Amino acid sequence: MWFERTKNLLVKLAIELPIIQAPMAGGATTPALVAAVSNAGGLGSIGAGYLSPNDIRIAITGTRALTNKPFSVNLFVTSSIKAKHIQVATINRNLDVYRKELHIQQVSDTADYVDLFKEQLAVVLEEKVPVFSFTFGIPSPEAIKILKDNNVIIMGTATTVNEGLQLENKGCDIIVAQGSEAGGHRGSFAGGFRTSLIGTMAFIPQLVDAVKIPVVAAGGIMDGRGLAASLILGASAVQMGTAFLTCPESGIHKKYKLAILDSTEESTVVTSVFSGKPARGIKNRFIEEMEVEQDNVADYPIQNTLTQDIRKEAAKQNRTEFMSLWAGQGTRLSKEKFAADFIESVISEAKKILNTCSRNL
Amino acid sequence: MWFERTKNLLVKLAIELPIIQAPMAGGATTPALVAAVSNAGGLGSIGAGYLSPNDIRIAITGTRALTNKPFSVNLFVTSSIKAKHIQVATINRNLDVYRKELHIQQVSDTADYVDLFKEQLAVVLEEKVPVFSFTFGIPSPEAIKILKDNNVIIMGTATTVNEGLQLENKGCDIIVAQGSEAGGHRGSFAGGFRTSLIGTMAFIPQLVDAVKIPVVAAGGIMDGRGLAASLILGASAVQMGTAFLTCPESGIHKKYKLAILDSTEESTVVTSVFSGKPARGIKNRFIEEMEVEQDNVADYPIQNTLTQDIRKEAAKQNRTEFMSLWAGQGTRLSKEKFAADFIESVISEAKKILNTCSRNL
Repeated sequence: MWFERTKNLLVKLAIELPIIQAPMAGGATTPALVAAVSNAGGLGSIGAGYLSPNDIRIAITGTRALTNKPFSVNLFVTSSIKAKHIQVATINRNLDVYRKELHIQQVSDTADYVDLFKEQLAVVLEEKVPVFSFTFGIPSPEAIKILKDNNVIIMGTATTVNEGLQLENKGCDIIVAQGSEAGGHRGSFAGGFRTSLIGTMAFIPQLVDAVKIPVVAAGGIMDGRGLAASLILGASAVQMGTAFLTCPESGIHKKYKLAILDSTEESTVVTSVFSGKPARGIKNRFIEEMEVEQDNVADYPIQNTLTQDIRKEAAKQNRTEFMSLWAGQGTRLSKEKFAADFIESVISEAKKILNTCSRNL
Repeated sequence: MWFERTKNLLVKLAIELPIIQAPMAGGATTPALVAAVSNAGGLGSIGAGYLSPNDIRIAITGTRALTNKPFSVNLFVTSSIKAKHIQVATINRNLDVYRKELHIQQVSDTADYVDLFKEQLAVVLEEKVPVFSFTFGIPSPEAIKILKDNNVIIMGTATTVNEGLQLENKGCDIIVAQGSEAGGHRGSFAGGFRTSLIGTMAFIPQLVDAVKIPVVAAGGIMDGRGLAASLILGASAVQMGTAFLTCPESGIHKKYKLAILDSTEESTVVTSVFSGKPARGIKNRFIEEMEVEQDNVADYPIQNTLTQDIRKEAAKQNRTEFMSLWAGQGTRLSKEKFAADFIESVISEAKKILNTCSRNL
C-alpha cells in the first residue's frame, strides 16, 4: 500500500500507519487522546512544552496505563529570561482592561522565565519514551547525544528548508515540516516570521529534495486527501493537529471545540499577542484589540506568562473572546469522531484515492 | 490515466493535458510562451489586464500565428477611479527619492484610472477567444451573459471558499483556486487580506467540497509532484505561473529571471507597495523601504500608476531593487526548460508517481 519511504518510517517508529497526532501543548493531548491514536496504529504525542517535570511523568504514566504502543513527548527549546520590569508594567497596564472585565484580582508584576528543558528531558529519558520531538529551536549537542545514546528517535520541527538542513546536520532522525496552514505556534527558529510561512504544497517537495532524512508533512492536512497528497509530494507521513482537537478524547475547552467546528478557512490569523511568538488561531476580540499596539507584545515567553491569568479565567467563564483558539486553515473539514474512527476514515479514504490512481492507468 | 473530473475538464477546454499556464500580466505571457503551452497540449493564457484593447488584439493575433490550439485571455475586474491630488502628491514625494536615484525627469501629478474592461472584453469576443478568465472580482451579469451567449468558457479566480461560491452562483464554468503560495497579485475580492491567504493544501479540498463546478489548483505547484498532489486533493487541473516565468519563451526581464533562479522559498513576501493590491514577490529594497510607511501606499490601481515610471526605468537600468519581482513560494524548483519540455517533464513525473501508487497496492 505505502511508498517505500513510508514503510521505512513506519518500521523506524514501530507504528502501523503514517499518521502522527501533533503534540499540542495547552491541555489538548490527554492520555486518552495520545493512547487512542497509538492504539489505532498512529503515533500519539504528548505536548509537554508547558508541563513541569512532574506533570510530564504523570502524563506519561497516564498514557502508559492506556496503551503499550509507542508514543512521543514534545518539548520547547527555550532559554531562561529575566523580564524587564518596565516592559512588564507597560504590558500589564494594557492587559488590566481585560482583567477588570474578567474580575481578576491579583496581578503578577514579574514574568521571569526559568527554562526547565534539562529537567523535562530527564523525565523523557528516565521513562524511556521511544520518540522525542521538539520545536522552537535545536537542543544542545549534549542533549542530542544523550537521546542518541538512549536510542530515542529524534524529531525536529522546521518551517523552512534552511531549518530542515540544520536539524539534519545536528543529528535529527526525522523532520516535521510545518507548512503555513498549520494551527498553533510556528516552529520557526532561523528565519523571519513573514518569510517562513511557506504553504505545505510548496514546502514539502523543496525540503524533501534538500535533505536525506524522512520528512513528515504538517499544516492543513485534515483527511485522506491530505494524507495521500502529502505522501505524493514526498513526505513519509503526516502530522495532524487541528483534526484531532475536535475528537471527544481531546482535552480542549468545549467552547474552543465549538469555535473550531463553527469556523471556516478564513477564520484564523497568525498572531503574537498571546505568547510573544507567532501562532495561528481563530481571530477574536483579544487578537483584534491587542494587535493595534505593537507595544502590547513582549518576547516569548514573557508575553505568554503575562496573558496566562486572562486565558485561564476566560476559559473558566466560557469567554472565547479572550482565549487562545489555536487552529489551522482546514477547519471546514473538522469532524467530531473518536480518534480511532477518525484515523480509520483517513486511512480508508487515502487508500481509496491511491487505488483509484491505479484503476485509471 | 486521469481521474474522471480531469477528463471532463479536458473535454470542456478542448485540451489534452491538465496544465494551465497562469495569465501573468506585465509582459511574461508572450505569444511564444502562450502558443508553446497550447501546442504542448496545455492551455496557454494571455495576461491582458494591463493591455489596451489594441494591444490585446495584437497579442491574440500573434499567438494565433503560432498555434491553432485553444488559449485563454485574462482581464482584471476593476473600476474607474479619480485619484485625490493630495494623496498623489504625498506618495510622489516619497517616490521621488527613487526617481532621483534613477535619474527620472518627468513626474506625472495625476493617477486617474480609466477602466477599459468593456473595450478589452469586446476584443476577446470579436476575436472569438475560446476561454476567458478574470481576477480581482466578478464581471457584471451583462458581461457574463454576453460571454455565455458567445459560448466562451468562463474562469474566475477565488482565494476563499466564499469567493468560489460567488463565482459559481454568478455563472462561472471553472474556478481557479489561488492558494497563498502563489506568486503575483492575490485575486481576493471578498475577504480580508490576512484571512484570505489560504495554503493550497488546505484550500483545495474545502473548496471542492463546497462547489459543483471544476476547480483548478494554483499556488506553489512546480512539478509532477505538485500536479499529482493537486489532482488527489480534488482539483481537475493545475495552473502554474512561476514555473513558466523561467522558460526561454517567457517575456520577463533577464535579471528578474535570474532573481527567481537564485531565490528560495524564503525569498518572497506579500506586499501592496508596488500596485496598491497585495501581491507575492521577491523581497527587495523598494519593498523593504516602502513598507515602513503605510502612507506610501494608495489603493489599487493608483499606486500601480504612480510606481510605473520607477519600475520601467529600473528595468531599463537592470536594477532589480526597484522592480516588481513577482514569484511564488516554490522557486527552488524553478527550471530553465522550454515550455514544451517543461510540460512533458511535469506530465511524465506525475504519471510515474500515480503509477507507483498502483504498484504499491
